[in-house]
Amino acid sequence: MKNILVIGAGRSTFSLIQYLKQHSTNEDWQLTIADFNEEWAKEKAGNHPRTKALKFDVGDAEARVSLIKEHDLVISMLPAHMHVSVAKDCIKYKKHMVTASYISDEMEALDDAAKEAGIVLINEIGVDPGIDHLSAMSVLDTIRAKGGKMLLFESFTGGLIAPESDNNPWNYKFTWNPRNVVLAGSGGAVKFKQEGQYKYIPYHQVFRRTEFMEIEGYGRFEGYANRDSLKYRSVYGLKDIPTIYRGTLRKPGFCRAWDSFVKLGMTDDSYVIENSADMTFRDFTNSFLAYNQHDSVELKLMHYLNIPQDSDLMDKLSWLGIFDSTKVDLEKATPAQILQHILEQKWSLEAGDKDMIVMHHIFGYELNGEKKMIESSMVTLGKSMEETAMAQTVGLPVAIAARNILNGNISTPGVQIPISKEIYKPMLAELKEYGIEFIEKEVPYKGY
Amino acid sequence: MKNILVIGAGRSTFSLIQYLKQHSTNEDWQLTIADFNEEWAKEKAGNHPRTKALKFDVGDAEARVSLIKEHDLVISMLPAHMHVSVAKDCIKYKKHMVTASYISDEMEALDDAAKEAGIVLINEIGVDPGIDHLSAMSVLDTIRAKGGKMLLFESFTGGLIAPESDNNPWNYKFTWNPRNVVLAGSGGAVKFKQEGQYKYIPYHQVFRRTEFMEIEGYGRFEGYANRDSLKYRSVYGLKDIPTIYRGTLRKPGFCRAWDSFVKLGMTDDSYVIENSADMTFRDFTNSFLAYNQHDSVELKLMHYLNIPQDSDLMDKLSWLGIFDSTKVDLEKATPAQILQHILEQKWSLEAGDKDMIVMHHIFGYELNGEKKMIESSMVTLGKSMEETAMAQTVGLPVAIAARNILNGNISTPGVQIPISKEIYKPMLAELKEYGIEFIEKEVPYKGY
Repeated sequence: MKNILVIGAGRSTFSLIQYLKQHSTNEDWQLTIADFNEEWAKEKAGNHPRTKALKFDVGDAEARVSLIKEHDLVISMLPAHMHVSVAKDCIKYKKHMVTASYISDEMEALDDAAKEAGIVLINEIGVDPGIDHLSAMSVLDTIRAKGGKMLLFESFTGGLIAPESDNNPWNYKFTWNPRNVVLAGSGGAVKFKQEGQYKYIPYHQVFRRTEFMEIEGYGRFEGYANRDSLKYRSVYGLKDIPTIYRGTLRKPGFCRAWDSFVKLGMTDDSYVIENSADMTFRDFTNSFLAYNQHDSVELKLMHYLNIPQDSDLMDKLSWLGIFDSTKVDLEKATPAQILQHILEQKWSLEAGDKDMIVMHHIFGYELNGEKKMIESSMVTLGKSMEETAMAQTVGLPVAIAARNILNGNISTPGVQIPISKEIYKPMLAELKEYGIEFIEKEVPYKGY
Repeated sequence: MKNILVIGAGRSTFSLIQYLKQHSTNEDWQLTIADFNEEWAKEKAGNHPRTKALKFDVGDAEARVSLIKEHDLVISMLPAHMHVSVAKDCIKYKKHMVTASYISDEMEALDDAAKEAGIVLINEIGVDPGIDHLSAMSVLDTIRAKGGKMLLFESFTGGLIAPESDNNPWNYKFTWNPRNVVLAGSGGAVKFKQEGQYKYIPYHQVFRRTEFMEIEGYGRFEGYANRDSLKYRSVYGLKDIPTIYRGTLRKPGFCRAWDSFVKLGMTDDSYVIENSADMTFRDFTNSFLAYNQHDSVELKLMHYLNIPQDSDLMDKLSWLGIFDSTKVDLEKATPAQILQHILEQKWSLEAGDKDMIVMHHIFGYELNGEKKMIESSMVTLGKSMEETAMAQTVGLPVAIAARNILNGNISTPGVQIPISKEIYKPMLAELKEYGIEFIEKEVPYKGY
């Protein structure tokens, strides 16, 4: 019998825990679901005979150690900065560990200790990061095995609303953490490489430098650049690749409209707006426009941002209510917090709404003197408000990785991300059984 | 006899040290000029009988204490973050101190100790901050003494090239620290208040939200907003004032052209450009524009920023050489460092060039039911490459404050800035003798 500990029982753990329960009898597992919020843990555990729920504070070192000691593998679904203390205990007591978060420098520094302890410590095994690694490395290794030379790698992921629930002018709703959406792209310049040339985009231009792509059966999308695409060169073994670009997907028109908020300064999270509680949505918008005794907020905004009155863009902005006299009612709020609040009035999921995760890779390479291109796309749809596309694509890879570690299929020790064949091959095969599948097709080569 | 210690002998100390030497016999002063760069100290000291030069490292606590102990008053012309250790020693050994820098939180925290020691510790007594405080408080106190109610306060300062040396399309040269010019406005949103409404401008729009003003004899200027105008409300006793705005002056057209660099991302100092040493100015410009195999860098830039080909703006950009094939030749440089380097090729002072400091305040108030407005302007011209307008306007207030402290005319102890009548009245009178004079005039009231 093996004991699995899941720390954190938030929204993203639904499919993870469902998978673990389903396999618990066959695999002879006992599950412990631990969360600071005991209700969440209980709800996720349900009445399952092999599952128990616990209230747990990860900051309580004594409780943490005694809990970890009782288990064979720990899955941490906590916020990224909370993983390290768990990881140190896992190393000390020789327990395997899985997280879906980006590897931090502190986590990376534990590599030697993890190897010495002989434990597998996999990070970045959710959707993005996670499924992007698995699917990209699978195609890259295939191309390289044939002797192909990589010329271009582009990769896009988007968490969106499913077509059946897409009923607003932005073609967007909050299917995940709204704060991350509001702050997306902020905090530093974008870096990438196109045809051998390094390219940089400042935050305030990111949403005007998009590119379009078509995904079969789902129509057109636009991608805006993620912060640092360059670091993926070393991760994926693409040191000298002339073009590398990673981005985020939206439906067309979203980025140009979002750019209005960036240009106005509404996405700034670094200072507090005076009297934020007493102002209206309209006052908030006006605070970014010059004073004038007579001119309307609408006209000032259209003129400042050079937006035609009869444009879709102006429709999108008006529909959100940024010119309305609704009270903000948030004390000491930053512009980004107020904007999030305004967006939540309109972009929150309604009962029955389904989400969608879209991933799209483009691989350009040269083989036997010929330039070739492969596109590889995945679309996962939410099945319910609980079994969302996000919960499936984050949780299933984590669960499958855990199973493979406990079965000995993944056994190379150390702190790692899922880029080795040992990991991605069985995982992609099993994800396919759950409907998480990439459609690959050769397309005519086009450069950037 | 009194002993004065001047720490720091850089460019801004010319007029300061000249003043101290000139008064040293009458006042019976001995001067010590101390700098880490002994040559600078010697050069500034010259052969003056009452002046000696020393090599001095402010980080050497023992040397610092023994030097401070020998003097009655210390003038620190070091960079702002180096003042605090000097200030602590001054308090310990009961020596007065003067600096031209913004008061830091650490400095402010020494107020009680300075009061207890009975020493005067004046900060912000250069030009901006410094002369702006003196001149603004003088008018504000006069208005308030008459029973006027303040409605509006705007204040602008610019370090510019004098008209006689103004011979380039930007009407601008580096008359002071180029790095500060390149980074001006970055690092946070601008905050001010117009007619009772709080207004915010994100960094990337600051140079598009300017206002024009006319200064008699010197023509038209444009002002862009400084970062936080709101904090001056408490400093100047303007708690409920409906309009407060502080800005920086340039000649018209500068800001719109500078905005191109901001929009491209060239003023970013947060990351290093790849291969910066090997790239040309043209490559640098191109790195902020989308890849295209055929289109020229010029056309891509004009299209991206929506600049007509036949505009003054395009003239300004081309004249600077940003499309030239000159090598950058800087290792691991940030965009801001490379931009500074490009600008220094064209904006550096030539032999004989003179600088100019321009200050312009606007006061709006209500008196006996009538709305009134006063404009108060000062223009100081450089006399030589050494006796620049900057050296005069920074150094003379510091020197005059030191003399008034030693004479007992300024005697209120504590950490302070020059906003009390005790300080500004004698200082403005003496500055006038040196040609640093404000022209006040009543103008018809106009709101914002």
